[in-house]
Amino acid sequence: MSFDNVKALLFDTFGTVADWRGSITRKGEQLAREKSLAEIDWDAFARAWRAGYKPGMARVQSGERPWTAIDVIHRERLDEILTDFGLDNAVGEDDRQAMNLWWHQLDPWPDCVPGLTRLKRRYLLGTLSNGSIIGLAGMGKRAGLPWDFIFSSDLFKAYKRDAAVYLGAIDLLNLDPGAMMMVAAHNDDLVAARSHGMRTAYIGRPYEYGSDQTNDFKPEEDWDVIGHSMEDLAQAMGT
Amino acid sequence: MSFDNVKALLFDTFGTVADWRGSITRKGEQLAREKSLAEIDWDAFARAWRAGYKPGMARVQSGERPWTAIDVIHRERLDEILTDFGLDNAVGEDDRQAMNLWWHQLDPWPDCVPGLTRLKRRYLLGTLSNGSIIGLAGMGKRAGLPWDFIFSSDLFKAYKRDAAVYLGAIDLLNLDPGAMMMVAAHNDDLVAARSHGMRTAYIGRPYEYGSDQTNDFKPEEDWDVIGHSMEDLAQAMGT
Repeated sequence: MSFDNVKALLFDTFGTVADWRGSITRKGEQLAREKSLAEIDWDAFARAWRAGYKPGMARVQSGERPWTAIDVIHRERLDEILTDFGLDNAVGEDDRQAMNLWWHQLDPWPDCVPGLTRLKRRYLLGTLSNGSIIGLAGMGKRAGLPWDFIFSSDLFKAYKRDAAVYLGAIDLLNLDPGAMMMVAAHNDDLVAARSHGMRTAYIGRPYEYGSDQTNDFKPEEDWDVIGHSMEDLAQAMGT
Repeated sequence: MSFDNVKALLFDTFGTVADWRGSITRKGEQLAREKSLAEIDWDAFARAWRAGYKPGMARVQSGERPWTAIDVIHRERLDEILTDFGLDNAVGEDDRQAMNLWWHQLDPWPDCVPGLTRLKRRYLLGTLSNGSIIGLAGMGKRAGLPWDFIFSSDLFKAYKRDAAVYLGAIDLLNLDPGAMMMVAAHNDDLVAARSHGMRTAYIGRPYEYGSDQTNDFKPEEDWDVIGHSMEDLAQAMGT
């Protein structure tokens, strides 16, 4: 398959680029040491935090709630799980604000910086993520992810998989949809991107959710590229 | 003056970062050699092209015309000046499309890559420009400008100095306006930024318009930083 007319690659970030589970777990373990917190399972904490993400967005998507930034959704969920994990009294407001910024400081999977650096030679690289702009920009800067631009739900006041996000990205880049490729570890993200005419690349991330992972173990359609790392993608895209 | 609470620097690009006049002149001279065009003054051509920019935006800002992307305004002006310079028959549609992309391939002033590279260590760096997203991203990538994000009039469907651009940037970054600094070679851009609570840095670019330059030879207010290069700015900002 030729990708000669592809100009821009759009990346899902949480899970596809960023190892949020490992990153939040490590941050939690560090905080626990610094503050001598009671021993808890920080991997379970990370998964519980993330478990508030889809229901939180769903309330916005259904119209039950007006546009609400992901950083607010993350913070509300944090307050819930600090109670669930028995840390309500141990963690004060300043620490909660700092913890919420962990989502801006996620580490990428190890293949991302080398793979994206290769891809950047030929393609425009941007995020297309439900993260906040400042979170995505900060994460990219900290990790050395060579983004050419940051597209976020903040721009469209809508969350993936709403059509407004994909159509908004197509409009902003002013490219033919077929000149844009969505890169994601999640089949439903690619289903949506393909439905709007975009090319698709699936990067398998079977360890994203750890013991909570129930789907996205494999590609569920004949995506244009199928790989296990950004270096696989770089290879497939001829860079 | 302390800049401890500044987190993000927003850069005007045309003139402040990009030497559009020198870049367009060089591109024109190269095209003329390749196509053996009649001899014309490409510096005058560049200035004439740019002279269509403010009137073109003004028609959008006044409401006379609905939102129109800068690439369209550039193209309309190109068609006008090719006639004025006697090149109407010599330059066909394909060449016109390629010429319009010259605005996506502008060279930065020589101090920009070193200065921005220093500033990037401490601050989030983004454009806040009337350019198109794809043009700004492409220019940054080609020149090695280390942007963390791209903000463009495309996002706000408004051109500077409309308030919607500055307020939109403040909203998208979700920062206190005083945590953001506008960097520009144009006093009126800084007047607008300051009116919305942003910090301001003036970078003198007295050669931007060449013989057409009539203003912005000097800072007209007590901007928070005043310098002649991005390296001066990096120095002032402690990087």
